[in-house]
Amino acid sequence: MNKIQTIKTISAAIALLFAGAAMAQAPAAAPDPAASDPVAMGWMQGSPPAADKTVRWVDGSFYKFPQTRWSFAHWNQLIPSSDVWRGDGKVAALPRAERKDIAGLSFQPANGGATMTFEQALAANYTDAIVVLHKGRIVYEKYAGAMTPHTRHIAMSVTKSFFGTLGEMLVNEGKLDPGAMVTQYIPELKDSGFGDVTVRQVMDMTTGIKFSENYADPNAEIWTYVRAGSVLPRPAGYTGPQNFYDFAKTVQKDPEAAGAFRYQTVNTDVMGWLIRRATNKTVGELLSERIWSRLGTERDAMIAVDSAGNEFAGGGLILTARDMARFGEMMRKDGKFNGQAIIPKAVVDDIRNGGDRAVFARAGYATLPGWSYRDMWWISHDDHGVFAARGVHGQTIYIDPKAEMVIARFASAPQAANGVSDPVMLPAFRAVADRLMRR
Amino acid sequence: MNKIQTIKTISAAIALLFAGAAMAQAPAAAPDPAASDPVAMGWMQGSPPAADKTVRWVDGSFYKFPQTRWSFAHWNQLIPSSDVWRGDGKVAALPRAERKDIAGLSFQPANGGATMTFEQALAANYTDAIVVLHKGRIVYEKYAGAMTPHTRHIAMSVTKSFFGTLGEMLVNEGKLDPGAMVTQYIPELKDSGFGDVTVRQVMDMTTGIKFSENYADPNAEIWTYVRAGSVLPRPAGYTGPQNFYDFAKTVQKDPEAAGAFRYQTVNTDVMGWLIRRATNKTVGELLSERIWSRLGTERDAMIAVDSAGNEFAGGGLILTARDMARFGEMMRKDGKFNGQAIIPKAVVDDIRNGGDRAVFARAGYATLPGWSYRDMWWISHDDHGVFAARGVHGQTIYIDPKAEMVIARFASAPQAANGVSDPVMLPAFRAVADRLMRR
Repeated sequence: MNKIQTIKTISAAIALLFAGAAMAQAPAAAPDPAASDPVAMGWMQGSPPAADKTVRWVDGSFYKFPQTRWSFAHWNQLIPSSDVWRGDGKVAALPRAERKDIAGLSFQPANGGATMTFEQALAANYTDAIVVLHKGRIVYEKYAGAMTPHTRHIAMSVTKSFFGTLGEMLVNEGKLDPGAMVTQYIPELKDSGFGDVTVRQVMDMTTGIKFSENYADPNAEIWTYVRAGSVLPRPAGYTGPQNFYDFAKTVQKDPEAAGAFRYQTVNTDVMGWLIRRATNKTVGELLSERIWSRLGTERDAMIAVDSAGNEFAGGGLILTARDMARFGEMMRKDGKFNGQAIIPKAVVDDIRNGGDRAVFARAGYATLPGWSYRDMWWISHDDHGVFAARGVHGQTIYIDPKAEMVIARFASAPQAANGVSDPVMLPAFRAVADRLMRR
Repeated sequence: MNKIQTIKTISAAIALLFAGAAMAQAPAAAPDPAASDPVAMGWMQGSPPAADKTVRWVDGSFYKFPQTRWSFAHWNQLIPSSDVWRGDGKVAALPRAERKDIAGLSFQPANGGATMTFEQALAANYTDAIVVLHKGRIVYEKYAGAMTPHTRHIAMSVTKSFFGTLGEMLVNEGKLDPGAMVTQYIPELKDSGFGDVTVRQVMDMTTGIKFSENYADPNAEIWTYVRAGSVLPRPAGYTGPQNFYDFAKTVQKDPEAAGAFRYQTVNTDVMGWLIRRATNKTVGELLSERIWSRLGTERDAMIAVDSAGNEFAGGGLILTARDMARFGEMMRKDGKFNGQAIIPKAVVDDIRNGGDRAVFARAGYATLPGWSYRDMWWISHDDHGVFAARGVHGQTIYIDPKAEMVIARFASAPQAANGVSDPVMLPAFRAVADRLMRR
C-alpha cells in the first residue's frame, strides 16, 4: 500500500468504527431505551438481588448492555477507586433559571431522521443524566435510570480532557516541556513506541503508535489495555502486562501512522505518567489540589485504579453531572469559577485554539467535519467556538462559548462509538444553544 | 467432652486467640512501629511505585504486615466500595480545646510493663489516627503513617456497631421483631445454622453456629468467609460460596455453642440482611439516610462490597477518624448530635445496659473481665459506664460517659487480636479519662 492508500484504509476503518461499530459485548438486538431502564429491569434491586438480576465485575456482566445502564452509575462499587477530594470549602451554588421550553424544543437530526424534541433525543440516546447551564445557571436538568443529582457516573474518556488540561497547566508553568522527548521524563519508555515522541505529540495523540481502539475488533489493543489495567477481568491464564504503565512499555510503533492523529487511550495514561513525574503526585492528588478542591464541587470525584493502584487517566473518572458541569463552566469562563482563577486563560486558549485540522480530517470522523484535537479536547472550529470532552457510550461536556452554554451529559448507549448518536445529539445541543441565544 | 470441659476448651482457645494470636500473614518478627511507618518504608511512593514497593489486592500483599500500615488507609483503592453519602448539609464543627498535658500523661499498663506516656502507648501500638473528644471538643488529635485528618481508614469490626445500632433502631420502631425467628425475614436461611435462631440472638451473637474467628487457624471459617465476600483474593479453583449471603446459607450448627456468646462476623452480615429485608434498602443507604447525612460528617463514608455488590456489614466501613468521633459523640449524648435527635435514647440505653455478663464471661476474654456484648457493642459495666466498638488490629470507638469522653482510634497493629494491645490501650484511655475529669 502506498501512503495515500494506507491513509484511506485507516480512515475508512476509523470512520466505520466511529460511525456505528457496536461495542463488542452489545447484543445484536439491543433493548430500546425505555425497555432497558435499569430500575424497570430490576438490576441490583432486591435484598439481595436475584442471581439473574445481579451485575458483577468478575464475570464481565457489568460491561454488557443493558447491565451497563446500572453499572455506569455504580462504577466504584465494581472497580477499586481512589478518591479526588473536594476539599473542605463551600459548595459553589449553581443558580437555577429553568427554561420550560427546552424539553419540547424541536430540531432536525443530521441523519435524515424525522424532526424530534430535545427530550425525545435524550431518551432515544440512553441519557442517564444531563445538566444544561446558560450563563452559569441551570436551565435544564434531568436524571434517568439509576442516576440522581447526587450520584456519580463513569465519565469514560471525558476523563482525558481533565488530564489534558492539567498537562497543559504544567506546560504553562514550565514544569513540562512540550518539545521534550517523553523519555526525558520516563526513561522506561525508551524501547517502546513512545521512544521517539515528544510530550506535545502525546498531548495531541499524534504519537504514531500501534494501538487500535476498535471496540468491534476483539484483537484490538484496547482490549489488552483494559485487561492490563484491570478495567475488565482477565481470561484464565492471562500473562500480559499487569498495569497501564507496563502495557505502555510494550507499545509498538506503526510506521504508517507517523504524524497522524489517532485516538488512542494509552496516550492519556502516558500523559498521566508524565504528570506524575513532573509533580511527584498521583493524577488524582493533582486534580484535587489544582481543580477539584477549588471548584466548589458538591462531591468528591473518584478514579478507577488498576491492580497496582495507578489511576486510569484514560477513562476512570467518576463524578456527578453537576460537578462535571461546574468544570465545564470554569472552562467556558476562561478558567475562572467560584470567585477565583483556577486555570490560566492561556491554558484554555491553547485548548480552544485547537489542533491541526488537516491532520484530524485524515482520521475520517464522519460526524466531526472540520474539528481538531488538542490537549485531549475535541475542538469544533464552528461559528460558536464549540469545544467538547467526549467519552464512549455518550459521555460529554459540550461547551458553546457564543451561546454561553455548557452541557454535561452522561449516557449508557449500547454502542461505544459516539458517531452513532452524534447526528442526533450534536444538532440537539446546537438547537438548545440557538434557543438560549434568542433571549 | 462434657459441657464444662467443652466450654473451658472453647474459652481457652478464644482467650489464646484474643490474648496474642498473630494474624495469619504476620511475619514472625514484625518490624517495630517506627520501622514499619508506611511513608518511611516507601509503600506506594514513586511515580509509579517500584514493584517491591507496590501494595496489591490481587496477590494478597495488601493484607500482609507491614503493607497493612498503608492499605488500611487506602481500602477503597484496593476493594470496590459503595458510598455512604454525607448528604448536603453543613459540617458539624468539632470545636477545639487542645490539652497539651495528654501526650505526656503517664500511666501504668496492665501487663506488668513499665510506666509509659499516652503518646508512647499510641506509637507502640501502631496508631494511625486518633481523636479524643471531651465534652464534644477535640482535646487531642494525631495522625501518623499514611493518615491525615481528611483521609479514611478501614474500621474493621467497628463497622458492626454501626449496623447493630441501626438494627436496634428498627427494633425500636417495630420494623424488626427481636423475638421473631430470623427465617421469618430470611426464609433462605431455613436449612442453615440460622434456621432456629431469633433476631435477638443474631444481634447479640448467641446464635450457636459453627464459625471460628481464629485468625491464627488457616482452616477457620473466617478465611472462607472473607474469600466468599471477596475481601481476600481466592485461591485458584475456588468453588466455595460466591458472596456473604451464600456463605451464611452454608453455616452449620455447633451443638456445643448453644446459648453461648461467640464473636462471629457472619452474624453481622445476617444482621445486615435482616436490615435490608426490613427496609428494602441496602445497609449503606440506610446508614446514610438515618445517621451519616444527619451527623454533619466531613466526608462520605464508604463500605467495601462483595463481588455481588453486597456491603460488608461485618467489617467494611471506611471513614475518617473525625467522623467516627462524631458518631461516638452522638452515642455519648444519648443519640443527640448536630442539633437533633438522630437515634432514640431508648436505643442507646439498650446498648449501654449491655448483655448477659455471665454468658460473656464464659467466652474467656482475659482482657475484658466483667464486660458484655449487646447490639454489636462491647459494654464494660465499669464505674465509668464505658462502652466500645472494637475492630481487629486496633480500631475502636471508646466512649466514657462519666468522663464525657469519646475516643476514635485507627491502628494497623501486626496482630489482629485486640487482646494484645488492650493491656496497654485500655489503661491509657482510662488515664486520659481520669485526667480530663480532674478539671
